[in-house]
Amino acid sequence: MVNAFDFTPLLRPDVPPAAARFAGFPKYNFVGGHNDPASTPIEALRAAADAVLKREGRDLATYGLASGPQGYLPLREFLVRKLKAHAGIACTSDEILITSGSLQGLDLVNALLLSPGDTVLIEADCYSGSISRLQRAGASIVGVPLDHDGMRMDALAAILADLKRGGVRPKYLYSIPTIQNPNGSVLSLERRRQLLRLAEDYGVPVFEDECYADLVFDGNRPPALFALGRERGWDGVIHIGSFSKSIAPALRVGYVVAPWSVIARLLALKQDAGSGALEQMVLAEFCESHFDTHVAALNVALKHKADALIAALAEHFGTAAEFQIPSGGIFLWVTLPGEVDTTRLAMLAAEAGIVINPGEEWSVAGVAASRRLRLCFANPTEVVIREGVAALAAVCQREFGVPARIGNVVG
Amino acid sequence: MVNAFDFTPLLRPDVPPAAARFAGFPKYNFVGGHNDPASTPIEALRAAADAVLKREGRDLATYGLASGPQGYLPLREFLVRKLKAHAGIACTSDEILITSGSLQGLDLVNALLLSPGDTVLIEADCYSGSISRLQRAGASIVGVPLDHDGMRMDALAAILADLKRGGVRPKYLYSIPTIQNPNGSVLSLERRRQLLRLAEDYGVPVFEDECYADLVFDGNRPPALFALGRERGWDGVIHIGSFSKSIAPALRVGYVVAPWSVIARLLALKQDAGSGALEQMVLAEFCESHFDTHVAALNVALKHKADALIAALAEHFGTAAEFQIPSGGIFLWVTLPGEVDTTRLAMLAAEAGIVINPGEEWSVAGVAASRRLRLCFANPTEVVIREGVAALAAVCQREFGVPARIGNVVG
Repeated sequence: MVNAFDFTPLLRPDVPPAAARFAGFPKYNFVGGHNDPASTPIEALRAAADAVLKREGRDLATYGLASGPQGYLPLREFLVRKLKAHAGIACTSDEILITSGSLQGLDLVNALLLSPGDTVLIEADCYSGSISRLQRAGASIVGVPLDHDGMRMDALAAILADLKRGGVRPKYLYSIPTIQNPNGSVLSLERRRQLLRLAEDYGVPVFEDECYADLVFDGNRPPALFALGRERGWDGVIHIGSFSKSIAPALRVGYVVAPWSVIARLLALKQDAGSGALEQMVLAEFCESHFDTHVAALNVALKHKADALIAALAEHFGTAAEFQIPSGGIFLWVTLPGEVDTTRLAMLAAEAGIVINPGEEWSVAGVAASRRLRLCFANPTEVVIREGVAALAAVCQREFGVPARIGNVVG
Repeated sequence: MVNAFDFTPLLRPDVPPAAARFAGFPKYNFVGGHNDPASTPIEALRAAADAVLKREGRDLATYGLASGPQGYLPLREFLVRKLKAHAGIACTSDEILITSGSLQGLDLVNALLLSPGDTVLIEADCYSGSISRLQRAGASIVGVPLDHDGMRMDALAAILADLKRGGVRPKYLYSIPTIQNPNGSVLSLERRRQLLRLAEDYGVPVFEDECYADLVFDGNRPPALFALGRERGWDGVIHIGSFSKSIAPALRVGYVVAPWSVIARLLALKQDAGSGALEQMVLAEFCESHFDTHVAALNVALKHKADALIAALAEHFGTAAEFQIPSGGIFLWVTLPGEVDTTRLAMLAAEAGIVINPGEEWSVAGVAASRRLRLCFANPTEVVIREGVAALAAVCQREFGVPARIGNVVG
């Protein structure tokens, strides 16, 4: 008979509540950055694993392989070429830090810059993991409105001027400029230049999160803010990216690109004895030959699924569901009529095995987001997408009378 | 022309100093948990990677594979069997959390339990990464003296009684009972039982770090404190372990074993979207067939290197170097005569390409540790061990007159 030891009185006072047991994925899973299983490049990954283990497996006996704490050098060298070709970034392998997913990049940059009470600017609708991290850091979060072309520069200019009048210098401006999460927009080149001008004028560094930027369906990715900043002679951008969206989310490999002075500070905070070597080695070997062809094929598959979701929404929600046709990525940011509360919808849908992201978790815009929801489409099959949207529409109609008529029932 | 943006005024006030650029490993590298390159089981890892990617590669498209946030289920199921067989631990796969190295386990447990000012007990000579983490957490660290059988129970009893009189309940008692780092001792079974009795009496949880426990050269590993605690009906032990020492340090896979109520709290703090999937999958596949035979062969190789280091110390330092013949592991904890200051020795040796751990970084015992040093022997070849120890003795003699005579010179 084992008596439970009561750890409760010993816990740090502000720890989050206990997590629930994992019960498997729901039947209709429209959340999470999961990707298309059929697009996983299994054969090429097998070949890469075999080749790199044969050639360099002995190096697993040393922490960080022979590359030191910044990560496997061949992967950083691939990134130097890839970021130049795809995002216009001119950097050296010393200006790259490999991280355990781009989430570790978020954590490290926040640990470097943020104290409680610091002000941070973000797009008003924003990745929930970034919002929750800022809340945990005690940051004062200011949301900048965005539209179909990304963050609105008129709004940014007004907010920066306003903060400056109040004596506040924000610690950074966080943006997901390419395939914004959740609204799917791509910040136009003109706005990118305006953003950098404003950031320079106000002395506010830019924290650029491009974890989805490989997934522009037509391959038309604009230059990164990091690239444009350097071009104009201003080196105040910290850039993060990831292989989670382009190759496989279960591989926890991301990266930070920044001037060496920043990388050297982040390294001092990265106390994990390195990120996973096998993942880095296999990725480097795979990407060298296969990155571009794989991503092109993946984008075709994702576009099909996006089209399937759009068709299903048109069929089952009709004009009640408004959204921008996405230029890429794995999610759709949907606006429903004002009578719908998506937080309540998410709760009721979950009971029916349909999981969605309610807008309020992906926004700091308050009540304006309560009629919005994010639907991720990369992981479910097209059949599951159709069935799931039909089931969601049924729940939504029952509770909110929206949509007024269900397409496939009323015909 | 790019102007450096000055991040300095924006840094969090208490960030650590910038890291230095990695300049490669030194010629004589006696630090770090690196392992024997020749013992890396390359062929079996290649076969494991190929088989598991072929069978389950598609699951890489989902975060956490199909296993949820606690880690790849087949790896947790292997650990259930392995921990039962090797350490006497009775637990379920729900009581295991896979982490990115055991270091993440340290970080999570500290994040769960520690606020600044909390008291923590550790072995007075202790892993520097554990000490530095406690210092960063603002803990009040109390060192318990240890000898060749591990932590001294008379000292622990006195310290606990003393703290209780002062109204202090320590947050936990941290111990590396099997192949203690740095002194290499194995806590005897009798002391393990005494330790648990004291912990129960004083209501102090035990944080057991067994990351080296697979490396007992003769395979004679005592039951873990976790196992003995459960056996006596007391469930106050949190256990961590790792594959870094038994398979390969560059693979960042460790684990926490604890009652579900603790795991559920740690999960809530683990915000990294999972540990590396490929490393977990390959390890599970490899370990199922090869763990025991691999570790047995590795221990033979490590014992040879330990013997080489011992012989080299005898040859070059003679009676000036005192140490316990290690029962296992990858390091030797050496005591030199009182006139030697190993912090200064480490600095001078580094200039000659010889890197060692000075005792003061691996101890909270203060000046008593300044004549001690830790020498890691798993990574260098036997030739490098011999040459490195000879070179170290030369530096030490030049600076401190110790040893009085150099074996291979004076004969």
